[in-house]
Amino acid sequence: MRFMTTPDNASDASAGPTSVAAQDWAKASADPQYRAAVVDLLGALAYGELAAFERLAEDAKLAPSLADKAELAKMASAEFHHFERIRDRLTEIGAAPTEAMEPFVTAYESFHKQTAPSDWLEGLVKAYVGDSIASDFYREVAAHLDADTRGLVLGVLDDTGHASFAVEKVRAAIDADPRVGGRLALWARRLMGEALSQSQRVVAERDALSTMLVGGVADGFDLAEVGRMFSRITEAHTKRMAALGLAA
Amino acid sequence: MRFMTTPDNASDASAGPTSVAAQDWAKASADPQYRAAVVDLLGALAYGELAAFERLAEDAKLAPSLADKAELAKMASAEFHHFERIRDRLTEIGAAPTEAMEPFVTAYESFHKQTAPSDWLEGLVKAYVGDSIASDFYREVAAHLDADTRGLVLGVLDDTGHASFAVEKVRAAIDADPRVGGRLALWARRLMGEALSQSQRVVAERDALSTMLVGGVADGFDLAEVGRMFSRITEAHTKRMAALGLAA
Repeated sequence: MRFMTTPDNASDASAGPTSVAAQDWAKASADPQYRAAVVDLLGALAYGELAAFERLAEDAKLAPSLADKAELAKMASAEFHHFERIRDRLTEIGAAPTEAMEPFVTAYESFHKQTAPSDWLEGLVKAYVGDSIASDFYREVAAHLDADTRGLVLGVLDDTGHASFAVEKVRAAIDADPRVGGRLALWARRLMGEALSQSQRVVAERDALSTMLVGGVADGFDLAEVGRMFSRITEAHTKRMAALGLAA
Repeated sequence: MRFMTTPDNASDASAGPTSVAAQDWAKASADPQYRAAVVDLLGALAYGELAAFERLAEDAKLAPSLADKAELAKMASAEFHHFERIRDRLTEIGAAPTEAMEPFVTAYESFHKQTAPSDWLEGLVKAYVGDSIASDFYREVAAHLDADTRGLVLGVLDDTGHASFAVEKVRAAIDADPRVGGRLALWARRLMGEALSQSQRVVAERDALSTMLVGGVADGFDLAEVGRMFSRITEAHTKRMAALGLAA
């Protein structure tokens, strides 16, 4: 399903990274490598939303009150609607959503398995950290995308007020018992480590996606540039955690 | 929070059961007993939707494919939006949603604890049975409600195509292996038994609600009439199961 463009358009593959951002999907997708990279990206994003839905719904069980439970259910539902938008887009561009998601199932499942929260606060920190680093990652990537795909990706990253909910609850818990801060700081660090480890595995396995990540399909794959992107995301994470009172 | 009407309007409490259905909320709620019954009803419905969200999200983990997983996540999300509408209505009429839901938490939790599906098909049958009997129950109750509350209750019961999804999957599984039918028939019977047991507990504990169920706040509480309603619901359930190939 992935390569539906005609060979006649393949010469567009030589377009530089900056020009893709100025193109719409119809033009940009004429390059099969770019097309494959976007299908990968949307597949990863879609499964990420579906997995986030499942985990948030699971964490809702840990909620100390009905109001908190409802809030987590709301976050889960919002993730599901993001999933729907991306899945519909995959269908629209002629890609099978399930096929597009499949390559990323293992990475997400491993991540969630390694980072099952043991209580409500760990769940909140995970939701906040996960949302934030995913948002940072996709914003970095968005710069390399055609206008249509960029619009979709930025649209599903729209802040829905979940971060402030998590931040408020975590702050209150640390105020009530400062020792909680130390435990959650270690937890946040572990989350980031596990996220990096899974991301690096994906980067190593998905060539088209990785090439796009570092500045356009025409350029060679540059592991160092991907490393720099991960560094920027880690740095932003560290600053966010410090602001939350979780300096590890 | 429950009794905000003025005593001047209390004489409306003598209005017969048929007249409530002809009234809007503003008029009907002048009767504090009717008001309490509706707050109970909406509280039970709201928590039921939230619990259904949680269970469907949990069952999504058992899905044999990503497409099936997405379908269950969609059902869960739809239940959450129903929850939101009822919760907002409770707030609108001056009732605290959490307080209104609290009395029903134990019954739902016990039901779900006693009926945790052990596989994907059991989860589907449970979603189908649960949706159907809840729908039958609330449609019976709707006849005793003022026009505004009735509109809301019937609105959140709107079929969203979930039943046909479950029916299709269960039918296919029985076609592939007829022994599955026997197992699921017993399962459906157990679900109904457990639902009745929890409902009867709720009826015994919530006077205002129970009185309304049997035909209006002015009438005396009649356990036999509640029993007949449960019989009608059980009968409808048995017919649905037979149609599905699950005659127990």
